[in-house]
Amino acid sequence: MTQTSRRRPKRKSRSAGQLAKLPWKTLQYRHAPFELLGSDAIESIHRAALSILQETGMLILSTTAREYFRAAGFDTSPDSELVRFDSELIESLVQQAPSSFNLQARNPAKNLKIGDGHAVFTSVGGPAYVMDLERGRRTGSYAEMCDFIRLVQSLDILHQEGGGGFEAMDLPAASRHLDLFYAECTLLDKNWVPWTMGREQALDAIEMAAISLGQTPDDLVETPALCGIINTNTPLQLDIPMAEGLITMAEHGQASAVTPFTLSGAMAPVTLAGALALQHAEAMAGIALTQIVRPGAPVLYGGFTSNVDMKSGSPAFGTPEYLQAAQASGQLARRLGVPLRSSNVNAANAPDAQSAYESCLSLWGAISGQANMIKHAAGWLHGGLTASLEKLIIDAEILQMVATSLEPFEVNADTLALDAIHEVGPGGHFFGSAHTMERYQSAFYAPLLSDWSNYETWLESGSIGTEQHANRIWKQLLREYEQPPLDPAIDEALLTYVAQRKQTIDKAN
Amino acid sequence: MTQTSRRRPKRKSRSAGQLAKLPWKTLQYRHAPFELLGSDAIESIHRAALSILQETGMLILSTTAREYFRAAGFDTSPDSELVRFDSELIESLVQQAPSSFNLQARNPAKNLKIGDGHAVFTSVGGPAYVMDLERGRRTGSYAEMCDFIRLVQSLDILHQEGGGGFEAMDLPAASRHLDLFYAECTLLDKNWVPWTMGREQALDAIEMAAISLGQTPDDLVETPALCGIINTNTPLQLDIPMAEGLITMAEHGQASAVTPFTLSGAMAPVTLAGALALQHAEAMAGIALTQIVRPGAPVLYGGFTSNVDMKSGSPAFGTPEYLQAAQASGQLARRLGVPLRSSNVNAANAPDAQSAYESCLSLWGAISGQANMIKHAAGWLHGGLTASLEKLIIDAEILQMVATSLEPFEVNADTLALDAIHEVGPGGHFFGSAHTMERYQSAFYAPLLSDWSNYETWLESGSIGTEQHANRIWKQLLREYEQPPLDPAIDEALLTYVAQRKQTIDKAN
Repeated sequence: MTQTSRRRPKRKSRSAGQLAKLPWKTLQYRHAPFELLGSDAIESIHRAALSILQETGMLILSTTAREYFRAAGFDTSPDSELVRFDSELIESLVQQAPSSFNLQARNPAKNLKIGDGHAVFTSVGGPAYVMDLERGRRTGSYAEMCDFIRLVQSLDILHQEGGGGFEAMDLPAASRHLDLFYAECTLLDKNWVPWTMGREQALDAIEMAAISLGQTPDDLVETPALCGIINTNTPLQLDIPMAEGLITMAEHGQASAVTPFTLSGAMAPVTLAGALALQHAEAMAGIALTQIVRPGAPVLYGGFTSNVDMKSGSPAFGTPEYLQAAQASGQLARRLGVPLRSSNVNAANAPDAQSAYESCLSLWGAISGQANMIKHAAGWLHGGLTASLEKLIIDAEILQMVATSLEPFEVNADTLALDAIHEVGPGGHFFGSAHTMERYQSAFYAPLLSDWSNYETWLESGSIGTEQHANRIWKQLLREYEQPPLDPAIDEALLTYVAQRKQTIDKAN
Repeated sequence: MTQTSRRRPKRKSRSAGQLAKLPWKTLQYRHAPFELLGSDAIESIHRAALSILQETGMLILSTTAREYFRAAGFDTSPDSELVRFDSELIESLVQQAPSSFNLQARNPAKNLKIGDGHAVFTSVGGPAYVMDLERGRRTGSYAEMCDFIRLVQSLDILHQEGGGGFEAMDLPAASRHLDLFYAECTLLDKNWVPWTMGREQALDAIEMAAISLGQTPDDLVETPALCGIINTNTPLQLDIPMAEGLITMAEHGQASAVTPFTLSGAMAPVTLAGALALQHAEAMAGIALTQIVRPGAPVLYGGFTSNVDMKSGSPAFGTPEYLQAAQASGQLARRLGVPLRSSNVNAANAPDAQSAYESCLSLWGAISGQANMIKHAAGWLHGGLTASLEKLIIDAEILQMVATSLEPFEVNADTLALDAIHEVGPGGHFFGSAHTMERYQSAFYAPLLSDWSNYETWLESGSIGTEQHANRIWKQLLREYEQPPLDPAIDEALLTYVAQRKQTIDKAN
């Protein structure tokens, strides 16, 4: 159960024993979701959101987006960027969004189903910095970013790569995304998240994803491969790059996760109900835009409501408020019939106990809220400013355990073991019984990271703490990484695309 | 919300600022519990347990207990310690157990309700060692044990003290329990867990609890004050001290938490269904014994099923199997209509990320399984061999957050904040709005331990990690501890009782 079928690494002598990575496994919720709020309360938040959209409206900074909204019948003005949203019209548009969709991966066995009770874990994306135990926090290079992507590929518990982990600061800003997409296309055989800050980035992602799959952008319309992360600019703004990214994705049949960053007490009301009403309003506006551009376009409802520490203004994550917001967001997304995107987040400064308990509370909220895509599922530190290599491994262990716990165990004559219990009898021991011997090798979850040795043994073997152990594991994973096979013609086509686009960008700059 | 109303400490100059301890608050489940298994599966486990009790039976090592079972009509033999349990008879006895009961505390505001959707957090009890950041792991003294009890008193999130934290190894083994009970009676005003290894210990606990409450043991029969932890000796044995402890508690109307330690793969079948069937059988036998001794006696169903690492034999805690067993145990306890005792456990060797994520998974199981008493809720390390002072604080933070997340937030016109959202408008900020200013001081959970400062600030202030911060907090709590008022006559009576009993014990040894 816990041993992977990966080929052994070539540099076998440096291997420190096979790591207990869970093999690729899709996740499914088999139980009723947790309903934190009553249906009346959910309805109140929904109606409040409709009222915000109708009465206050949103600033839509992109002319193209405003034009789409105007053409769909919404209240726009030539002198203003404000759009007001008729409630019936926006509800009817949101209803056109599908309850689930699929995303292609280069390895078809790793295609994703988003929605309808399925869940995927997506690695961290977006941080400015990278950090590890030896080198501390720093801006990352392209080579380091590629290593991070290799680690994400190695961990089968991560169903989707989340956008490079961190920025490659040694590359020119204007064309950096091309190098990221090339790395994502070639170092991974799983689905990956593109950058979609504006039309150019989104188009490049679509072109390169199509090349990597041996398809054309037109092929991808019916079988999407990409999901962009679209953040509204809370409160009640949609900026130009995000609007253009969303529109480009929808035009090409690709997905967006519309995610307002509603930080209660700062960019959102100090009350959780108000912050969620704002989240719900902005999410509906974004979802509606995807449906105007292409009815039936795949889209997720992004829930990212947390709060600030009112003393310092620092954002908090993995708190009771975060947990509750994640649970309520599940209810709100289900109210709309749209898949939910949630996150595994923390505000810790080191991959220590705080980072772990805040992450676990985030995941508790996401899983009990039945999120369908859990972004930043592994590697997020410093409130999202940093991708941590050790936290990546710590999170992978937590995710492996959470995934395993979602599969109910079997209850039947074999597993009830009445004969074995009778045979062992009072005061006996099950270690040597036939029932145990037949099953022990695959009986239980085997940890990737956790050390269960007793204290004396642990002291004797050098008191290796969890962070230090995680450090050894990512190094071993990196040594053992093998690039998934890629048709050299596809690699060539990707390189050609990148080179041509860089030329165009260089000329423009 | 997060500031306590405690009087300021006398040595004010040494205080490092007021700690954000949640005030005393009872916990209640307001939602349907998570049902991991279908009702057919639960019924199969229940029937398997009945079959184990009827066909295989249990070794009941105590003559008194066997006599109770024989008198109730169970199948015993004069030549053997084996008891076989008629299914109908044991089911009818278990049905007599109440679905909830109350436990008195010296401070009536801290009386506990056990069962019927209520939950209490109980501090660690049972470890042989104590550990902290500076002094490492060691056997503890009585003075250190008293400090541990003072910390438990200081943390209002802990509803019940769990049995001293660790053993006072500088005191004679035969009378050590008297010193523990004296400390529990005098340093706490909350409910405490006694040791109940045999009749003498249990009787001493009852006598001293009665004295501390200004009552008699007879008074306690209808208004119990004590709950003993009774472990069966898995598989299928009940040893003499535990049987006598249980019987003595039930005779005096006091509660027991009957807790089989069904370690899957070692003392229980390698399959979780089998381990739970064994747990359920042993728990039913213990629960039935309490009802034979005193129909309607308060009792809990203890769920403590985990598994061993099949490579090393080490017990594992806070794993997917543990989480699932806790959830299923909730279903099994509800099947019997008896309150559930669960635990917050981990197998880590340091209060680091592993200890935190294993604890969080344990708590996830306990809370989603709707446990009514969560033992070892704070301070457990090394698979239960050690009470850790830093882990006590880390767990208190986690418990405070979990408790807060169990209270749904309000959704009404005030909290939906439509006026504030309209007033702030697109692109604005809520920091200065009237809606925020009126509410910000008590808006959000304030952490006891977590550090949300940004990385630069954190580095500048010395990179204090979570464990080190926890170390500072327990020291501050200890400095600020104030003993709850106690009638000097009661103190005198307790001291006299202890002195007399020590004389008797000394003579006997």
